[in-house]
Amino acid sequence: IPSRLPDVGTSIFSVMSKMALEHGAINLSQGFPDFAIDETIVHLVHRYMLEGHNQYAPMPGAPALRQIIARVIRETYGHTVDAETEITVTPGATEAIFAAIAAFVGPGDEVILFDPAYDSYDPAIRLNGGVPVHLPLQYPTFAIDWDMVRARITPRTRMIMINTPHNPCGVTLGESDLRTLEVLAEQHNLLVLSDEVYERLIFDGQQHHSVLRYPMLAARSLAVFSFGKTFHATGWKVGYIVAPAALMQEVRKAHQFIVFSVNTPVQLALAEYMQVPDRYLSLAAFYQQKRDFFLEHLRGSSFEPVACKGSYFQLLSYKNISRQADTAMAEELTKKFKVAAIPVSVFYQDRTDNHLLRFCFAKKEETLAKACEILRKI
Amino acid sequence: IPSRLPDVGTSIFSVMSKMALEHGAINLSQGFPDFAIDETIVHLVHRYMLEGHNQYAPMPGAPALRQIIARVIRETYGHTVDAETEITVTPGATEAIFAAIAAFVGPGDEVILFDPAYDSYDPAIRLNGGVPVHLPLQYPTFAIDWDMVRARITPRTRMIMINTPHNPCGVTLGESDLRTLEVLAEQHNLLVLSDEVYERLIFDGQQHHSVLRYPMLAARSLAVFSFGKTFHATGWKVGYIVAPAALMQEVRKAHQFIVFSVNTPVQLALAEYMQVPDRYLSLAAFYQQKRDFFLEHLRGSSFEPVACKGSYFQLLSYKNISRQADTAMAEELTKKFKVAAIPVSVFYQDRTDNHLLRFCFAKKEETLAKACEILRKI
Ligand SMILES: CSCCC(=O)C(=O)O
Ligand SMILES: CSCCC(=O)C(=O)O
Repeated sequence: IPSRLPDVGTSIFSVMSKMALEHGAINLSQGFPDFAIDETIVHLVHRYMLEGHNQYAPMPGAPALRQIIARVIRETYGHTVDAETEITVTPGATEAIFAAIAAFVGPGDEVILFDPAYDSYDPAIRLNGGVPVHLPLQYPTFAIDWDMVRARITPRTRMIMINTPHNPCGVTLGESDLRTLEVLAEQHNLLVLSDEVYERLIFDGQQHHSVLRYPMLAARSLAVFSFGKTFHATGWKVGYIVAPAALMQEVRKAHQFIVFSVNTPVQLALAEYMQVPDRYLSLAAFYQQKRDFFLEHLRGSSFEPVACKGSYFQLLSYKNISRQADTAMAEELTKKFKVAAIPVSVFYQDRTDNHLLRFCFAKKEETLAKACEILRKI
Repeated sequence: IPSRLPDVGTSIFSVMSKMALEHGAINLSQGFPDFAIDETIVHLVHRYMLEGHNQYAPMPGAPALRQIIARVIRETYGHTVDAETEITVTPGATEAIFAAIAAFVGPGDEVILFDPAYDSYDPAIRLNGGVPVHLPLQYPTFAIDWDMVRARITPRTRMIMINTPHNPCGVTLGESDLRTLEVLAEQHNLLVLSDEVYERLIFDGQQHHSVLRYPMLAARSLAVFSFGKTFHATGWKVGYIVAPAALMQEVRKAHQFIVFSVNTPVQLALAEYMQVPDRYLSLAAFYQQKRDFFLEHLRGSSFEPVACKGSYFQLLSYKNISRQADTAMAEELTKKFKVAAIPVSVFYQDRTDNHLLRFCFAKKEETLAKACEILRKI
């Protein structure tokens, strides 16, 4: 009985986390915090459960959560969205991305995405019959080459996927990127799927250039966000998608039959928790400090950092240490030196290997210090 | 920008629940309990959250949960499944069904399903490029006509979907159905997708005929279950799928990119909660009593019950009261008489109208008594 999917094997995140565990390595591979979450939100979930909020939430999400999301978007990006028709709560950003593609990408439709790319993008396109068109980010800046994009648009191009701040590279898109995208998308009547799950993890006084800041772009964009990233609870699996009502109506048709709805008490707890702005506004400084701590403690090491402007990932080049494949290097680092990281080549369709590893710095200072002590000696 | 989906409109469950709310009607439409869940499990979630289990669970589910599921399946159905490779935890049964179809049903593949059918089946098939082949259950027994099935199998038939206990009809499949299916599936090399979310809600001393009881059938089946139904928490959105390792490998490829994983602390709480067998074994008697309570309090009414052998749904015929369409009857009942139910025609692709309404009896006795008092007067 044949399958419809290429042999994608086990996700690199599972592979490396498992290897880290088996070899007692410090796990800077899979992206998740190793510190405690705020007990306030835990108690809120408990309270809503005890109060009896345990049955189906409305399909698009709990109204209270969609309302506060709309308010925060207005305050953050100066963009007005209708909570009723333009926001849908999803079980993580992954399902939001999948539902958006399911709604709009059909057999033969081309979707432009940029490598290195998060590992769910390509399979989500393929599973829906679409054709992924992988373009490389420029090396070593990881900027988008817009001329290359222009040259690859065809009458069958339906969507462009962007990701800012970028996983795994830690780069961000700027105003000129978004203006260029706006014009291109308009000219060719394209949809934009914008993965912005690290919107709050943005450093050095920059602002995040959300598609929602650009009205003409927002009018043809589906923007995806994540509570797991913002509130340190990746395992709760709650995210959301924002799009104009006419697009959202289609996303909801797919979402309704993929999963229907999301954990009710968790949604209500998030809605109440978000009422205090500092809970999400403090993120940038919090993670910038972690990035800086990691880089400081790496000083004197032979690993070379790539500039990280956002996300909780730091790329390090090991060119000065070894010429082996990044997958082999990641394995050696985990098994022999006991620090686990992600080889960046796995995020390239053609397995481009720039001798880079991705380290997650969403960790306690003691975890980062211990890892750096090891890395400095290599 | 065209959509890929037919205009499925808003799900009947949302429509009727909203109408019930707006008109102050007793809501027996959408299937969910109106009573409190066991506080024990709420406290377990709280404890696991406080203990710091808030990051990604492994993609196929928390090992502790998969282990107890495997044990319960062995004890219940005499079937041995490998917790590591043959069980995947999903955000509700809906995603399990979607992922199974995504893995195996591609463009042009035919899937046989039976009307009335749960409303996510057909769109899940279509979204994946498959061709839904709707066959009616026999009226008024709602049994499967296996000769009709045999006649509709073609070289493109890839899967048969069954649902027992049945939503909305409350009927169950028996040994002879499963034996017939086993032979058919074997002869034509078909997969079976078996929606068994009401496995524990089975009445009058029957046993549930899971595909997992029949080894030859289990070898080509994907069976779907729901914690929401079993532990009265439909809003927590946790279910699971069971399949032989070779099939599960493909389902996981899809699941991994549709949603990746499920709420960690909830999974761990469920794993601990399930250790006490009475917590799921008591379900049959609990709901049988509700069914009987509902039927007793209906005595003397002009509504005529269809025999309900399982699930928490009771079909009532209103033939003796009115000849209007069931959608109109449901609306009148909700708006004028203040009891909301689901018109069964919406579960038929061709909108067959047998003048039946579906009532959910997963409600407190006082709710059911009040509803029956109204229904008796109509
Ligand atoms: C879903 S596991 C992967 C987590 C993550 O976003 C990453 O490590 O890039
Ligand atoms: C997902 S809302 C529908 C709940 C249900 O299973 C039903 O009412 O049939």
